[in-house]
Amino acid sequence: MLAEIITIGDEILIGQIIDTNSAWMAQQLNLIGIKVKQISSLSDNEQHILAALEEAKSRADIILITGGLGPTKDDITKQTLCKYFNTTLRFDEQVFKNVEELFRKRGRTEITETNKKQAEVPVDCTVLYNAVGTAPGMWFEKESKVYVSMPGVPHEMKKMMEDVLTRLNAKFKTAVIIHNTILLQGIGESYLSDMITSWEDALPSYIKLAYLPQASLIRLRLSATGNDEAALRKEIDEEIKKLHTMAGEYIFGYEADTLEKLVGDLLREKRKTVATAESCTGGNISRMITSVPGSSDYYMGSVIAYDNRIKTEMLGVGEETLKKFGAVSEETVREMVSGILKKFKTDYAIATTGIAGPSGGSTEKPVGTVWIGIATPKTVIAKKYQLGSDRGRIVIESTLFALNMLRKVLINE
Amino acid sequence: MLAEIITIGDEILIGQIIDTNSAWMAQQLNLIGIKVKQISSLSDNEQHILAALEEAKSRADIILITGGLGPTKDDITKQTLCKYFNTTLRFDEQVFKNVEELFRKRGRTEITETNKKQAEVPVDCTVLYNAVGTAPGMWFEKESKVYVSMPGVPHEMKKMMEDVLTRLNAKFKTAVIIHNTILLQGIGESYLSDMITSWEDALPSYIKLAYLPQASLIRLRLSATGNDEAALRKEIDEEIKKLHTMAGEYIFGYEADTLEKLVGDLLREKRKTVATAESCTGGNISRMITSVPGSSDYYMGSVIAYDNRIKTEMLGVGEETLKKFGAVSEETVREMVSGILKKFKTDYAIATTGIAGPSGGSTEKPVGTVWIGIATPKTVIAKKYQLGSDRGRIVIESTLFALNMLRKVLINE
Repeated sequence: MLAEIITIGDEILIGQIIDTNSAWMAQQLNLIGIKVKQISSLSDNEQHILAALEEAKSRADIILITGGLGPTKDDITKQTLCKYFNTTLRFDEQVFKNVEELFRKRGRTEITETNKKQAEVPVDCTVLYNAVGTAPGMWFEKESKVYVSMPGVPHEMKKMMEDVLTRLNAKFKTAVIIHNTILLQGIGESYLSDMITSWEDALPSYIKLAYLPQASLIRLRLSATGNDEAALRKEIDEEIKKLHTMAGEYIFGYEADTLEKLVGDLLREKRKTVATAESCTGGNISRMITSVPGSSDYYMGSVIAYDNRIKTEMLGVGEETLKKFGAVSEETVREMVSGILKKFKTDYAIATTGIAGPSGGSTEKPVGTVWIGIATPKTVIAKKYQLGSDRGRIVIESTLFALNMLRKVLINE
Repeated sequence: MLAEIITIGDEILIGQIIDTNSAWMAQQLNLIGIKVKQISSLSDNEQHILAALEEAKSRADIILITGGLGPTKDDITKQTLCKYFNTTLRFDEQVFKNVEELFRKRGRTEITETNKKQAEVPVDCTVLYNAVGTAPGMWFEKESKVYVSMPGVPHEMKKMMEDVLTRLNAKFKTAVIIHNTILLQGIGESYLSDMITSWEDALPSYIKLAYLPQASLIRLRLSATGNDEAALRKEIDEEIKKLHTMAGEYIFGYEADTLEKLVGDLLREKRKTVATAESCTGGNISRMITSVPGSSDYYMGSVIAYDNRIKTEMLGVGEETLKKFGAVSEETVREMVSGILKKFKTDYAIATTGIAGPSGGSTEKPVGTVWIGIATPKTVIAKKYQLGSDRGRIVIESTLFALNMLRKVLINE
């Protein structure tokens, strides 16, 4: 079962708003086994809308349209749908009562002619009543295809989609689609691809693999389509097990997992605390850790030692160390991480020092050279990374490497 | 001049990612007078892509394609374009050198067969070299239409678009559109709208106003269309002057200005230094300040005092103060900001303490209560804010208020 989503309105085409509706709708449709073939954003133009409906009809069974239902002159979806379905408008009493009720709730009394027009609906459609706004939705059926028109305001559309999904589910008997996402850190897309190519080629035709890279992380999505949900789940689990034998060391989580949340959960479980000493990451590790609600249970704080003076005065890094090995060195990161552990009296600590650029690099230590240190109650580990040349990416990748290093330490203890 | 944007990849169609690229591209195209007729998201399917290219060609002069250029098997854009333009692939030495260079910078040495394939480009295209990634872009011309294929990774696409926009500008002569963006902080969209409504209504028809809100900031964009660039510029300047008389206290900059960059420029100009002491913002102020290249000239570092013990031990906040007034109080923020100034020996300092939630609020101090302190060589200022209930937004808004407070102090001295 295939669907298409059409959004109508200039605001997306001039880049004034980002279309978040379509992604949400696609997720919801997937959950009931309906695949989205295409998403199209059109202007408020009759000819363009009519042509797009014809095109969509040729590819899909279900066409979901959002936007262009406001009371102002630039909104023409309703009239255009009348033309497409060769029908006319009628006044709907129940829609009008809904508009009146909403106005009353919002403290308005006078209903204008423009507002009254919102109660007009095409003769040949099922009206979808709008519980949270004035514009009604419309459900059309023609030549075994379904067309649904909904408001573009996200919370109105989302509310109406509940009704739409129930109706779609009742009308079409659909296949089951299961999605599983595996999260990896510390490997590039092409390296991973080479590593798992034979497994990928051996996947059955009804299990699809997709790469979804995202600054220093990779999300691998396995999608299985079929009729027997339990069997599909079992098969996908088997495939994930195989993936583990090949690339297990890079896998850190599944679905909506994040490194900062996983690290936090491990620390809370063990009733341990952590602190950070950041140089090149400039507070980004701290920001990620504290983005998790309840992180004050295990996170004590940080010293951002951007200046070398702060490294010596606040973290106890030796002036000799800085002079002899430089701020970006194994020796310095070890002293930083030991210093913060001691000073903040925590069980674990993370430290970073590196050259985020664009200046400050040398032949020996080019931009992107980053040292990460982890201190535990028993030992200190330090590791060097080479992370490209983009300042923003160096910070993000260092942060993810640091969090994953701590996660591995916490798991392996 | 009309353009269409086509994004290729299943991840948008299953709702796993939101298409933010297209809105950004549409904005950029608008800036050089090119209107976007349609945005379409397609799956990685050859027939579907070929049909969509035909449709787009019938409506637009310029077709911009993103996505599907990765080295993995599910990415088929390059091959499909070869088919569409009836051409074949050739190996491009310069692209390959770029891939090698990127790998070297990232500390990887072995280039796989899959990576090598990224250096293959269609014979009949102008190669757009990718400064920040491995996949090259492609520029095709056929029957007076332009087709451009770019990577879907946002930062790679954005970098490549600089080149594409220059080429489009050179090729097509378009009407003059002037955009000016005014940046405001510390006021909500509806408050601002009420404040400037009479001015907005009086704008001439060829000057359009758009609100582009963005977590705690508002970008007001004035767009003027016409033939006489100098006259348009003068008129827009006049309108901005009027805006200043109404909402000047909230205006902090223009166009691509950021608070962190403006604050940095002021500090560098005055040869002064700053440090931060963050509690509720958890390192976000530090991260923003250090995101500016060269910030080590004026930024010394921070103490993230997430735990109260760190506030006393590292910043010298009195235990009595914490007991009597609480961690989220004027007294605490004043001691924090004085403490960091003294400890880090800087000219200026910023401190934050607040309740970011979701828990920890009370009737007296609900979630969203934030105290911000600024220390200067002469004085300490503290101000209280009430910033809603969303954890992420509280952090971002506190950060922007803090940076803007410091900016105002630096300007008014």
